[in-house]
Amino acid sequence: MAELLPTIKSPEDLKGFNAAQLNQLAAEIREVLCNLVATRTAHFASNLGVVELCIALHRTFDFTQDRLIWDTGHQVYPHKLVTGRYDQFNTMRTKGGLMGYPNPHESEYDLFMTGHAGASVSTVMGLASGDFLNGHPDRHSVAVIGDGAFPSGMVFEALNNAKVLNGNLLIILNDNKMSICPRVGGVADYFDRLRMNPFYTGFKNEVVKALNMVPVFGDPTERFLAQLKEGVKAGLHGGMLFEELGINYIGPIDGHNIQLLRKYLEMVKTQKGPTLLHVVTEKGHGYDPAAEDPVYYHTPPVLRKSDDSCEAAPKSSGGSKAYTNYARDAIADVMRKNPSVTVMTAAMCQGTKMEPLRDEFGDRFFDTGICESHTVAFAAGQAKAGLRPIVNIYSTFLQRSFDQVFQEVALQDLPVVFTMDRAGITAADGPTHHGMYDIGYMRLFPNMIVMAPGDADELTEMVNFAVSVDHPTAIRYPKTNAENISRDRQPIELGKAEVLKQGSDGAVICYGTQLAEAKKAVELLAKDGMNVTLVNARFAKPIDSETILPILKEAPFVVTVEEAALMTGFGSALLEAANEAGVDASHVKRLGIPDLFVQHGDRAEILAELNLDSLGIAKVCRELAAAHDQISSQH
Amino acid sequence: MAELLPTIKSPEDLKGFNAAQLNQLAAEIREVLCNLVATRTAHFASNLGVVELCIALHRTFDFTQDRLIWDTGHQVYPHKLVTGRYDQFNTMRTKGGLMGYPNPHESEYDLFMTGHAGASVSTVMGLASGDFLNGHPDRHSVAVIGDGAFPSGMVFEALNNAKVLNGNLLIILNDNKMSICPRVGGVADYFDRLRMNPFYTGFKNEVVKALNMVPVFGDPTERFLAQLKEGVKAGLHGGMLFEELGINYIGPIDGHNIQLLRKYLEMVKTQKGPTLLHVVTEKGHGYDPAAEDPVYYHTPPVLRKSDDSCEAAPKSSGGSKAYTNYARDAIADVMRKNPSVTVMTAAMCQGTKMEPLRDEFGDRFFDTGICESHTVAFAAGQAKAGLRPIVNIYSTFLQRSFDQVFQEVALQDLPVVFTMDRAGITAADGPTHHGMYDIGYMRLFPNMIVMAPGDADELTEMVNFAVSVDHPTAIRYPKTNAENISRDRQPIELGKAEVLKQGSDGAVICYGTQLAEAKKAVELLAKDGMNVTLVNARFAKPIDSETILPILKEAPFVVTVEEAALMTGFGSALLEAANEAGVDASHVKRLGIPDLFVQHGDRAEILAELNLDSLGIAKVCRELAAAHDQISSQH
Repeated sequence: MAELLPTIKSPEDLKGFNAAQLNQLAAEIREVLCNLVATRTAHFASNLGVVELCIALHRTFDFTQDRLIWDTGHQVYPHKLVTGRYDQFNTMRTKGGLMGYPNPHESEYDLFMTGHAGASVSTVMGLASGDFLNGHPDRHSVAVIGDGAFPSGMVFEALNNAKVLNGNLLIILNDNKMSICPRVGGVADYFDRLRMNPFYTGFKNEVVKALNMVPVFGDPTERFLAQLKEGVKAGLHGGMLFEELGINYIGPIDGHNIQLLRKYLEMVKTQKGPTLLHVVTEKGHGYDPAAEDPVYYHTPPVLRKSDDSCEAAPKSSGGSKAYTNYARDAIADVMRKNPSVTVMTAAMCQGTKMEPLRDEFGDRFFDTGICESHTVAFAAGQAKAGLRPIVNIYSTFLQRSFDQVFQEVALQDLPVVFTMDRAGITAADGPTHHGMYDIGYMRLFPNMIVMAPGDADELTEMVNFAVSVDHPTAIRYPKTNAENISRDRQPIELGKAEVLKQGSDGAVICYGTQLAEAKKAVELLAKDGMNVTLVNARFAKPIDSETILPILKEAPFVVTVEEAALMTGFGSALLEAANEAGVDASHVKRLGIPDLFVQHGDRAEILAELNLDSLGIAKVCRELAAAHDQISSQH
Repeated sequence: MAELLPTIKSPEDLKGFNAAQLNQLAAEIREVLCNLVATRTAHFASNLGVVELCIALHRTFDFTQDRLIWDTGHQVYPHKLVTGRYDQFNTMRTKGGLMGYPNPHESEYDLFMTGHAGASVSTVMGLASGDFLNGHPDRHSVAVIGDGAFPSGMVFEALNNAKVLNGNLLIILNDNKMSICPRVGGVADYFDRLRMNPFYTGFKNEVVKALNMVPVFGDPTERFLAQLKEGVKAGLHGGMLFEELGINYIGPIDGHNIQLLRKYLEMVKTQKGPTLLHVVTEKGHGYDPAAEDPVYYHTPPVLRKSDDSCEAAPKSSGGSKAYTNYARDAIADVMRKNPSVTVMTAAMCQGTKMEPLRDEFGDRFFDTGICESHTVAFAAGQAKAGLRPIVNIYSTFLQRSFDQVFQEVALQDLPVVFTMDRAGITAADGPTHHGMYDIGYMRLFPNMIVMAPGDADELTEMVNFAVSVDHPTAIRYPKTNAENISRDRQPIELGKAEVLKQGSDGAVICYGTQLAEAKKAVELLAKDGMNVTLVNARFAKPIDSETILPILKEAPFVVTVEEAALMTGFGSALLEAANEAGVDASHVKRLGIPDLFVQHGDRAEILAELNLDSLGIAKVCRELAAAHDQISSQH
């Protein structure tokens, strides 16, 4: 039972705790985390890993004045517990409850919503710069960033700019050897080597002292000796990659020892200029199964809780298959058939269920780490060399590659396939993770073919189709279980929609996997005696004007359905097409996401609120039909 | 007079040249470059700097098989001259002529259009990966990238991924100590230190040999000695930042010595795995004024040419002032009035004319280097700390920050001001540099206020307005001389359009600086007896439905005017607004950029072709009026 946690109203209360109590607090936080994942899916292993770091930070700094950003904010649960949100903690990731990421609307201790990795160093630099210019040069700005997020290009851009900064900048590298999946790349290897360095040997100071006594003169030999001296120093302290960029490097130190952490944090507090403190933690620390399998326990299925331990519930027995799985299987299938097809993930092999492809296809599978910009340009290079790369990235994370989609892919008209997972409402994760904007940001580039399947088998067909097309293609699909609509399916044809039902009382034009709901809506309306056309649009670009515009001309009302931002989305593309043909579209009602950030919550509930389920679609159709009848009867 | 150049039909012809002839070729190329800039504005200093490197590369590799990407392709002129395009060289940057960047449509030796910096390492990695998987492991892939482009985040992402690669990857760091402006940041300092390293001393091999004789055992002292050994090696060869990432580092070497370059290129050809060759060049080499002032001679005004030398024409005597200058002056003005305002450029201080602000505002002026992603997140941090940052970036380069505009700015609803220069047609630079998409990619995010001034003074007012608003704002303006429309100007008000003229025969709704042309068009039409409404829309978001929709309802025809992609642009926003209000918009004709990549050419000519000048707007209005009359007469 938590004793200390309920007494903490703000981090100020930590000041009264002694070392033993701080350790007890860590244990209590772990218990609360364990209780949480026994009730629902939530981020687990990453939070277990930062408990001591979080306590030490709040014990050392005053984040009402100092600044703290948790990069990739799913590691923010302990922080929420010690910043006055213990009482609300059981509302975590539920509608109206605590967000699973930092949220400025919840607390002054949360400065930025951070769901996309790698921005923290830049934002704390901005905060430090702001505090300095505003006359608070004494404030400290701290970014906590994992080794998985670290290779993000913008981190490097920030490091490159760090030394111009006047403020007190502390970057804490939370090195747990993991992204969500095991991390990859040269930076990862570098961090591994840093762990070997003899920081504590005591030896170091002695040798540096001796080296400093070597005199340096101007001739080549002397310069050589000076270089040698610098080299030895670098070898001693190991953080040369950072020191080369003008950043003090300290570490690595044990991230599960609160007293040690406090000692080093107090030390770096006094340091001027940008400093990187390398902290080694264990993802899943304190809960053995999570520490042993941090990938599985990143966001595990609900755990079984007994009195004194948590046990993971068995992996779900199958049942419905998600669109993610259909995409994965379709990709695997085209890779088997076509040796030119490659596939890329940006550290999301778990979320996109790609592990089996890594095993099966070896050198045609690429995990680039959280480096979306590079990933897309890399794929463009492969396409130019004659391969057929599939870039499998979440809709929201592909935003990082907007300019590479433009210059490296669309402008060169290269056949790169984008399979955009998590397109639409992602439920519990909230606004940083919903995939709202991909229709707009993909269709605005020439050469790009933009599509969405109506159901699961169509996703498979679209992957096959995309690989066969000599242009860039994008396919979006949501994070949900897949449905199939039994019908005499028309094969995928470039820019062709599929008409599932012809009617004269109105029309529903659906772009994407709301098609099943739209079909149910049309069936409900049929029971009311309304005969409504149902179209599976398939393509947002090129949009099927030939099929859709005659419907617009004849139907008394038209409803478009999409799980995306209405601004610039599919409905907007339809309005453009109608306008170009001089067709009146004032009777079109566009259903989708209005111009606001959708908060976290239950997916079905959110969709229902947006009228994006069968009842909502039917309701809107009835309202439009009634309004039309009223107008008609007035004439 | 060029003797050798005219004989070169392909780089194959270089194989027959001896050392003296290769040097003569370099001189001839410089003369041709000099002749070019005596006829028109073109990239000069950067091309002078890579003459020898270009010759050595084509003499060493066979780029019909091997792969070559010139990052930030304005340094591609010598490459064009030795790959069979000498005869067309005088068409450079003119409509239908050679593009000032690599262009795959011109030559098989140009693989990617590269106008945005930093993508080359990723794309050659993709090419190398493709060649490897396609059974050509013997091919070499070469990226030439400047030290200015090097700090781009995606370069780091690529380096982090380089060692997974099976292919032969060569990255040539063309280190000329310059971006377009003098480069900045930790990486720049690092490169400066590398130049000091004793690569040629001969000393090196001796010492490494001696060190290798030190035995290594397992106890801490011995491990320490091993570390020391590595440290000394690193100090010796200086490329530790790269070596730490698993990349072989060689250099720095003199980039103006063709024989030396050839020697090293032959050497790295035999090397397996990713290699970085550090080449030191002088921007403007071989033409003293350019070498002395490479910023001015990056794209100088037309040079005066005498028989044996070029002389820069005097800086233009003033005359019309560009929108860029108005923006700069407006920013300076708000910075004088409000100490919270800061300004950022991403290495474009020259293009955006920001040098005076650097001098005047010191610590409130930030040149972040070519690091747009970081820049926007950094600005967000400043805004969170209470500052009022203005991010002054070209429309097309801001695409690199799409996701930071989303997460760090719009989602947090922070008052960052984006002044988007080069929005619209940039003329001679072509499709990588036109700013086509910013209306769509800005307006799709909630909280964002998206605007464009109708003339120069309005740009000034909008900068003032933007700094006063508690939300993110974006202002777009083109690369052209500014105009002012004398009238009783209504002050800027959030979401309010300005009606310049009321008429009943039709309406022109202009978004942005085509307003002067639209006004002329309306005046032309008045001479025909047509009384046409003229609206200065000012805001694409929030769009002024209150003013515009009644016009839509009443006007026989409506023409919207924008210098941007029609897909998702201002006209599209207007269609959405009309649709939401149930207003018929089928009589709206949207003028703007259709769904294709606009090639380089003369700005006025391109705009005329798109009917975006006064004659075009008037012509379209007449056509619409005639069509409307015909329909009316049929009823």
